[in-house]
Amino acid sequence: MSSTTANVSVPADVLKKVTDMAYDARVASRILAKADTRWKNNALEAIAKDLEHKADIIVRSNAEDLERERAGGMSEAMLDRLMLNAHRVGELANSLRELAALPDPVGEVVRGATLDNGLHMTQVRVPMGVIGAIYEARPNVTVDIAGLAIKSGNTVMLRGGSAAAKTNETIVGIIRHALDKNSLPMDTVQSVDEFGRGGANALMVARGYIDVLIPRGGRQLIQSVVNNARVPVIETGEGNCHIFVDVTADVEGSAKILVNAKTQRPGTCNTVETLILAQGAEATPRVLQALNDAGVTLHVDAATRENLPGGVEAVDATDEDWATEYGSLDLAVKTVASLDEALNHIGKYSTGHSEAILTNNLAHAETFIRTVDSAAVYINASTRFTDGGQLGLGAEVGISTQKLHARGPMGLEQLTTTKWIMRGNWQARA
Amino acid sequence: MSSTTANVSVPADVLKKVTDMAYDARVASRILAKADTRWKNNALEAIAKDLEHKADIIVRSNAEDLERERAGGMSEAMLDRLMLNAHRVGELANSLRELAALPDPVGEVVRGATLDNGLHMTQVRVPMGVIGAIYEARPNVTVDIAGLAIKSGNTVMLRGGSAAAKTNETIVGIIRHALDKNSLPMDTVQSVDEFGRGGANALMVARGYIDVLIPRGGRQLIQSVVNNARVPVIETGEGNCHIFVDVTADVEGSAKILVNAKTQRPGTCNTVETLILAQGAEATPRVLQALNDAGVTLHVDAATRENLPGGVEAVDATDEDWATEYGSLDLAVKTVASLDEALNHIGKYSTGHSEAILTNNLAHAETFIRTVDSAAVYINASTRFTDGGQLGLGAEVGISTQKLHARGPMGLEQLTTTKWIMRGNWQARA
Repeated sequence: MSSTTANVSVPADVLKKVTDMAYDARVASRILAKADTRWKNNALEAIAKDLEHKADIIVRSNAEDLERERAGGMSEAMLDRLMLNAHRVGELANSLRELAALPDPVGEVVRGATLDNGLHMTQVRVPMGVIGAIYEARPNVTVDIAGLAIKSGNTVMLRGGSAAAKTNETIVGIIRHALDKNSLPMDTVQSVDEFGRGGANALMVARGYIDVLIPRGGRQLIQSVVNNARVPVIETGEGNCHIFVDVTADVEGSAKILVNAKTQRPGTCNTVETLILAQGAEATPRVLQALNDAGVTLHVDAATRENLPGGVEAVDATDEDWATEYGSLDLAVKTVASLDEALNHIGKYSTGHSEAILTNNLAHAETFIRTVDSAAVYINASTRFTDGGQLGLGAEVGISTQKLHARGPMGLEQLTTTKWIMRGNWQARA
Repeated sequence: MSSTTANVSVPADVLKKVTDMAYDARVASRILAKADTRWKNNALEAIAKDLEHKADIIVRSNAEDLERERAGGMSEAMLDRLMLNAHRVGELANSLRELAALPDPVGEVVRGATLDNGLHMTQVRVPMGVIGAIYEARPNVTVDIAGLAIKSGNTVMLRGGSAAAKTNETIVGIIRHALDKNSLPMDTVQSVDEFGRGGANALMVARGYIDVLIPRGGRQLIQSVVNNARVPVIETGEGNCHIFVDVTADVEGSAKILVNAKTQRPGTCNTVETLILAQGAEATPRVLQALNDAGVTLHVDAATRENLPGGVEAVDATDEDWATEYGSLDLAVKTVASLDEALNHIGKYSTGHSEAILTNNLAHAETFIRTVDSAAVYINASTRFTDGGQLGLGAEVGISTQKLHARGPMGLEQLTTTKWIMRGNWQARA
């Protein structure tokens, strides 16, 4: 921990242009805030249709990005996150249709009462206003966040990763055109990609212009935003997730959950990154064998190496492995003597995203749940369920790993704030 | 708006000491998080009793602070906020008893469902962990925030204003002693006052040690925290509140509300600071006369001066007046030609705290409510009601003027976060 805050410098002309755009976003947000649900849903459906109709153009733009990044040495896991084909564009369009089908959070009365003095009080959900989003390679985030913003009555300023620049430019153009055709302001969705890193920095310091900033990506991106932003930030996504296999864990169930949590989509933030084995756990050989068979590279400590089944390969873990979010088919593996040792390890290395215990010991399960200070804590299930769609919250902006405002999957509701409306009859305070 | 983030520098030894204290707070927070409600309530009642028993000592310490500050030229309004007598100490003790009587937010199940795949999901309120509070002269904040922290299962690190240093030292000592007698960790409540400004700065940069930082005080304090903090901040308290008197406003009702909103306790953040009069409002002369009679200094624009009733005194307003939170018996007064002009003025100068319209015109009332983007918006009532106690939320940590996490009065619930608890039966994601 350093003792000074970092400096972010933004060229004056970029700052001026971005705050001018944010002003346009603010003006647009007043229209969005008052737009009927049906009106917003029609726009979402029009965007979905246009994305599908123009899938060829999107895939062509995406191919340019892929080619450049492959030549630049991007890993296969990252290329997979960047890649769009007609099927994935269809999925994006469908995610907008699912958003249209969700209830509108705006206008919901959260609390209401008539006070002793006759004052009528209601606390009502209203949009935040202008949202900023800074994210990395996955172009689906562009569609997700634009859709969530529209449905929740907000406007959004996007800064996508340079790796997906061409794809994002095409998608944002399609969205803006569809908004315009549907009588909603084009400036509901804007991109600051043209300003490069300066655009991201401008979003971070534009206090009073941007109501909330959402970084979505890897550790470096998130830390940079958290350390430099002057506008309120919701920290998302960093997931160094742990699964603890207890002595009594089910053998086949554990193998199934570990393979699922590691290999189903290794690039996602709810993927397990460290397996902690209880000394003497019956499931150990089967779990390690299954992971090995699934192509996972095991980074093991000395105690685990002693229990490696014949034919299972492993490399030696270093201290760095415990803190690494691989985003690939790698897994750190540690063997501990007790639940307490597992809890201490998690307390030290967890990013507060998702952790699971696999056990048949009730006391251990309850201790784990009470002690682990993470957004999602599991008993006998895969960490891959930490996802807005899986939990029935609809599309998500990201998984919040902070404690303020939202923790865990963030959906529409988390993109609103509330306003207290007080209807009086000439009351003064006694 | 500047284009770089500011630098906060903290001497390394102070940073080390404060983070060591925060580590102790973290350890204590694990005990608090699991403490039964009854246990926490007993501690609150014991603290209340001790504060009353030791009121003499508190008042003596406070007299030292008052004497020094009076000699230093502190205004009467500020001295009033600093002052404690036996009666006010009794009120503080009673506020702790009221807290003990409130429901405990910890453990509340906010949401729950069984998913299609049989996974049992609950979202449960849990304490934040370690709260930091940076505040100014009012020593009652020390008791308020300590009480709220204890009840909500959090620990707290306090940095009070130097003006109340002696009072706060005495109060914190009494609280820690009472906690210890009641088997709760003394380090539930700690003060970093001994480190002066370095203590405040250390709280701001102690990311990972402090879960949320709450500044409570005037504009300069809050801006300094917001601009420099690396830990999540809840912005509180800045209140440049407006009341708009419409053409159709009730004459006596308007006079009553304005006098109440300005003079009942001028130092508070929900006090009105700008009165906006509709040109031709019937209530104008009566309102200005009543404010004048109540000893309010009116800072008027040219249009208002033309309508000043005989015998009512006023000074000329400058542009600075529109942006000023006086905290005293001063009031800026502006006359406008339309509701739109009033809304534009409020949009430009409001700090997003509390604004009111006084009117009998329904369309104007609804337009005002929809358009004004503040935490609390009133029709025909005093802005002084923006207060946790008045709204039935119990004691408050402050009035949030930001949109994230909490907006308006913040009570116990706003000092908690949630955890998603997922109980499975060996489910993997399909």
